[in-house]
Amino acid sequence: MSIKAERFVLLKRPTGVPDESAFALEQVTIFTELKQNELLLHGLYYSVDPYMRGRMSGAKSYVAPFALNQPMEGSVIARVAASNSSAFRPGDLVLGQLAWATEMVVKAESVSKIDTTDALASEHLGILGMTGLTAYFGLLKIGQPKAGETVVISGAAGAVGTVVGQIAKIKGCKAIGIVGSDEKSKLIKDRFGFDASINYKTQKDLASQIKLACPDGVDVYYDNVGGDISDAVMQNMNFKSRIVLCGQISLYNAKEVPVGPRIQPLLLTRSILMQGFIVTNFQSQFPEAIADLSKWLRDEKIESSETVLEGFENLPKALIGLFSGKNTGKMIVKAAA
Amino acid sequence: MSIKAERFVLLKRPTGVPDESAFALEQVTIFTELKQNELLLHGLYYSVDPYMRGRMSGAKSYVAPFALNQPMEGSVIARVAASNSSAFRPGDLVLGQLAWATEMVVKAESVSKIDTTDALASEHLGILGMTGLTAYFGLLKIGQPKAGETVVISGAAGAVGTVVGQIAKIKGCKAIGIVGSDEKSKLIKDRFGFDASINYKTQKDLASQIKLACPDGVDVYYDNVGGDISDAVMQNMNFKSRIVLCGQISLYNAKEVPVGPRIQPLLLTRSILMQGFIVTNFQSQFPEAIADLSKWLRDEKIESSETVLEGFENLPKALIGLFSGKNTGKMIVKAAA
Repeated sequence: MSIKAERFVLLKRPTGVPDESAFALEQVTIFTELKQNELLLHGLYYSVDPYMRGRMSGAKSYVAPFALNQPMEGSVIARVAASNSSAFRPGDLVLGQLAWATEMVVKAESVSKIDTTDALASEHLGILGMTGLTAYFGLLKIGQPKAGETVVISGAAGAVGTVVGQIAKIKGCKAIGIVGSDEKSKLIKDRFGFDASINYKTQKDLASQIKLACPDGVDVYYDNVGGDISDAVMQNMNFKSRIVLCGQISLYNAKEVPVGPRIQPLLLTRSILMQGFIVTNFQSQFPEAIADLSKWLRDEKIESSETVLEGFENLPKALIGLFSGKNTGKMIVKAAA
Repeated sequence: MSIKAERFVLLKRPTGVPDESAFALEQVTIFTELKQNELLLHGLYYSVDPYMRGRMSGAKSYVAPFALNQPMEGSVIARVAASNSSAFRPGDLVLGQLAWATEMVVKAESVSKIDTTDALASEHLGILGMTGLTAYFGLLKIGQPKAGETVVISGAAGAVGTVVGQIAKIKGCKAIGIVGSDEKSKLIKDRFGFDASINYKTQKDLASQIKLACPDGVDVYYDNVGGDISDAVMQNMNFKSRIVLCGQISLYNAKEVPVGPRIQPLLLTRSILMQGFIVTNFQSQFPEAIADLSKWLRDEKIESSETVLEGFENLPKALIGLFSGKNTGKMIVKAAA
């Protein structure tokens, strides 16, 4: 038996901002004779994330690059269409690091079942998945905010940013967001409870605006974007403050090594800690984090935010859109059920 | 009663590398009628340190700038010439943050007696003073080296650098020093037990030389200098490595904000921690550190290194010399006894 499926492969390693020509949509035939312990999956929700840009380049990093002419991959929620594993039944919803394909055959151990009793399926990609965990560990374990402190978040209307701001509020901090549009500025205050927000695109002197919004200075800077925005925040950092390096999306498409003011003298004279991380550094603590996040979600102390593009064929467009801020919250592609 | 004394005052705030015209040697008359609890001191050893350059500028920092037309000050060891305090007797040796003056009247509580039973007087300025403490806390509390790891030290033949390398060896690490002359290169290996050393002035491709000296990568980088040298070290940092920002002497005399490659993407993809500090952040732990350093000194596991300029009049020259690497180890000016 066989079925037709579609998948996106990486055709070339882009220079600068990728466009859709980096990807090719292929028609493939999938043989559905499942071996022992295999599942046939139908993709439902596909996560697109800024870190994928790094994997599209060939540079050495601690996540291997995507292979050329092979399917792109990422966090995907799928429905089990057929199972030759005693652990899964048709109709089960599963989560895994899977190919950008409409249907696929995988080993049962490469996915885990998700529970949709209290959370939407897509929330397992976002607030209860890598996004929420990244916000949680970066802010709490590196940023170590204390009640009453000021937390500034760049990319504040993005997937991770909206969660960081809400956790900062739960911890009794002041949350200030930097965003790229007036709509996002309004949204993070009205919907996610930020104390103030700044649209960097309409500010001539961003450092002074941050100073106005943070009269006591900045104690924690949760950085998703890097570049000039971070330069402006850093001028306002307090003595013994912390900078959490979560993302540098403004630099991911740079064609040359970006240059800027050297920051070490500032970190030195103000005794600042700056630390980069990837969420898997905290893998052993995932269960406690998911328990906290689930409880906050049930208690309506945090809420999830998603930008959903309908249609498998929109995966490249969704990923590219991240680099021009097309999303609010988690960017997800939803395939036909 | 009065005596004649000399002192150096700060005449102007220099731009770029300071020269001796920034200082003026003044003749002053000191009245030696001591009030209750006052001491008359005769200066013996004067510490000059890179951080003093920052205090010569008017910029806001967490140590107040030196005042214009007022005496320079720093760590000084002095002999009590006369005392109106029950806690001190003539002949006692004391340490304090004191003026660059040959004689001075101070309150008794502004100095502390030093014990020269097991250590030379000048060692209380260096290895048992701020220098040793800076090396100790930066390396052990921020760098957190584990046995078998590789520690790279810039400014390795300087006051702090020589101590950092020796503590790294005590902790079972590999110590690699970066220095500015072949003499210093030889010295840190032969006298201070560094495993390898690199003269950055004779290397065309410093990053590759560091890679050769550190085949397993760099786990801790103890940075005293900043700038291009640090750029080269950073290319070799390991995943989850630590960068201790102790000094940035290559940038202290910059006339404009120095620019360089943005480092956040590297810190992010390699999960690196970078932290600035000043030694007083660890004040509550000074006693245990001094106990460790004293024991290592007694057991001959570390040794002190000093460059001594004779003559009070050489204070400005000694300070300026730090910025062209005139010193090996701690730079001290010794006045006539």
